[in-house]
Amino acid sequence: MAVGGGSGLAVVLRGLKHLVGTGSLRRLTAVVTVTDDGGSSGRLRRDFGVLPPGDIRNCIVALADDEDLLARLFQYRFPNGEGLSGHSFGNLFLTALTGITGDFYQAVLTAESILSVRGKILPATLTDVRLRGRGRSGAVYEGEVAVGHSGEPLEALELEPAAPVAFEPAVSAIRAADLVLLGPGSLYTSILPNLMIPGIRSAIRDSGAPVVLLLNLMTQPGETDGMDASAHLEAIERHAGEGLVDAVMVHDGELPPGPLTHYAQTGSRPVVVDRARIEARGVQILPRDLLAEGSLLRHDPAKLSGVVLDLMAGTAG
Amino acid sequence: MAVGGGSGLAVVLRGLKHLVGTGSLRRLTAVVTVTDDGGSSGRLRRDFGVLPPGDIRNCIVALADDEDLLARLFQYRFPNGEGLSGHSFGNLFLTALTGITGDFYQAVLTAESILSVRGKILPATLTDVRLRGRGRSGAVYEGEVAVGHSGEPLEALELEPAAPVAFEPAVSAIRAADLVLLGPGSLYTSILPNLMIPGIRSAIRDSGAPVVLLLNLMTQPGETDGMDASAHLEAIERHAGEGLVDAVMVHDGELPPGPLTHYAQTGSRPVVVDRARIEARGVQILPRDLLAEGSLLRHDPAKLSGVVLDLMAGTAG
Repeated sequence: MAVGGGSGLAVVLRGLKHLVGTGSLRRLTAVVTVTDDGGSSGRLRRDFGVLPPGDIRNCIVALADDEDLLARLFQYRFPNGEGLSGHSFGNLFLTALTGITGDFYQAVLTAESILSVRGKILPATLTDVRLRGRGRSGAVYEGEVAVGHSGEPLEALELEPAAPVAFEPAVSAIRAADLVLLGPGSLYTSILPNLMIPGIRSAIRDSGAPVVLLLNLMTQPGETDGMDASAHLEAIERHAGEGLVDAVMVHDGELPPGPLTHYAQTGSRPVVVDRARIEARGVQILPRDLLAEGSLLRHDPAKLSGVVLDLMAGTAG
Repeated sequence: MAVGGGSGLAVVLRGLKHLVGTGSLRRLTAVVTVTDDGGSSGRLRRDFGVLPPGDIRNCIVALADDEDLLARLFQYRFPNGEGLSGHSFGNLFLTALTGITGDFYQAVLTAESILSVRGKILPATLTDVRLRGRGRSGAVYEGEVAVGHSGEPLEALELEPAAPVAFEPAVSAIRAADLVLLGPGSLYTSILPNLMIPGIRSAIRDSGAPVVLLLNLMTQPGETDGMDASAHLEAIERHAGEGLVDAVMVHDGELPPGPLTHYAQTGSRPVVVDRARIEARGVQILPRDLLAEGSLLRHDPAKLSGVVLDLMAGTAG
């Protein structure tokens, strides 16, 4: 069970899908944020009144066979064509199928079937939800794109409507989960939008499963500048309640200097792990080797799936 | 084996698909025109340089299970959305997949596979072909849309390039055919564009199979106004060579007066069967009951498939 949205969740799924059905992983379910209002998703949302398909599409593709031509098709973005340019095919698939059936989740199920995905993708809610951020400066940021580019610490995040009904299959899946993973991914625009849905966070509590925050390696410019590990945790507890998170998994090791310099140029810096303040909140720290090779400072899907297996087996730190 | 394009060809396929694999019909192959330059197909052609996908999409859907949600998805037209409006989903599917693989036919094969179609769809050529008509008035009509709306008798139809290379799988399928059906469908914009490809018409001759023209029930305003059966045949022989057609199948019976009045308001009238002039050309007339029920004067897929079975069995008139 993974909860989040965006590219971080896709990385987790990409690693874990290989374990599904091997006996080590009974089920893999992703609960996905539906507050995106930018890019192709935002345009489709405005033009067709569908839920934003982008994050869900990314997760569907992450759970498909990497070599599958149709998975590549789902990620294909039209490079030109008036009005078509920038739309990804998978988004149009979900939009058109919703147009026919009137049922967004039916469209997701059909996409899962066509791409033979291993696992389940569930929108956190079927309600048309908007995100709103309130900065410490008093400024109000309307919509996910604005929240993700606020450029200042956020005092509060809100949903509109404030308490959307959680999607029942997502609630059931979370309640039955053996482990709940939050992140990695955008704190305010991927992780928190799910946790702020009352039915989702109460399902996490009711599950009794360990809740592990997969901490981002780097801050996100405009969204989490200057936030250390405890600030991430504090933001989650402030919006979703204290005691929700049992452990924070952090990368145990150095980050390579070359990529760090490159990231610094965009304003992105390592998330400092202020271990003592985390533990003072009664939350465990799980240091692990998580870094992917290459010039991007990202989690490695295979390493992630290894540590998740350990967690499931109860052998973890 | 059916040769043509557009909605008429789809009607034939819709009837015949139920016979594929029953023992009465070994194979069903449709060779489809790729000269469309209007609507969604025309826009995609201009924006992406793909072959026009519309006629091929119609045939793919005609060969799919009628109840298949994905077949409905392929025919779905986006009702709004800047630039998306009017595009059918199946056209975008073929365009995007061509964008990924660089291979239009690979896209067709993938669509056939997803929709579990019974039969094969083959573009007549993979060359980017334009249609040009020359009217008796001397006017030149550039492109399929203009040709279809010339509003005057056409002296000549031309392809640009004049002699595109036929798609080899289409040539092979035609050579192996037991029966070749032409039409029903637009004479100048669906049937003739295929027959004017040298490799297609020589394959039809080489096949030794009977070639049957399924004559349109009604004239098409702007394209075949005032043309009787022998004029249709004459246009085919003028462009594709004498002796190509062995028989003309015509509807044997009255057309209902209500729909006729309605069609007359749009300038569409019954194609007069001038039997003597057809037979004077050495071409057989095959009168059959072909009319579908309802207010549209169209061929009935089930009746068509019945008469085609008879033709295959060699029991036909």
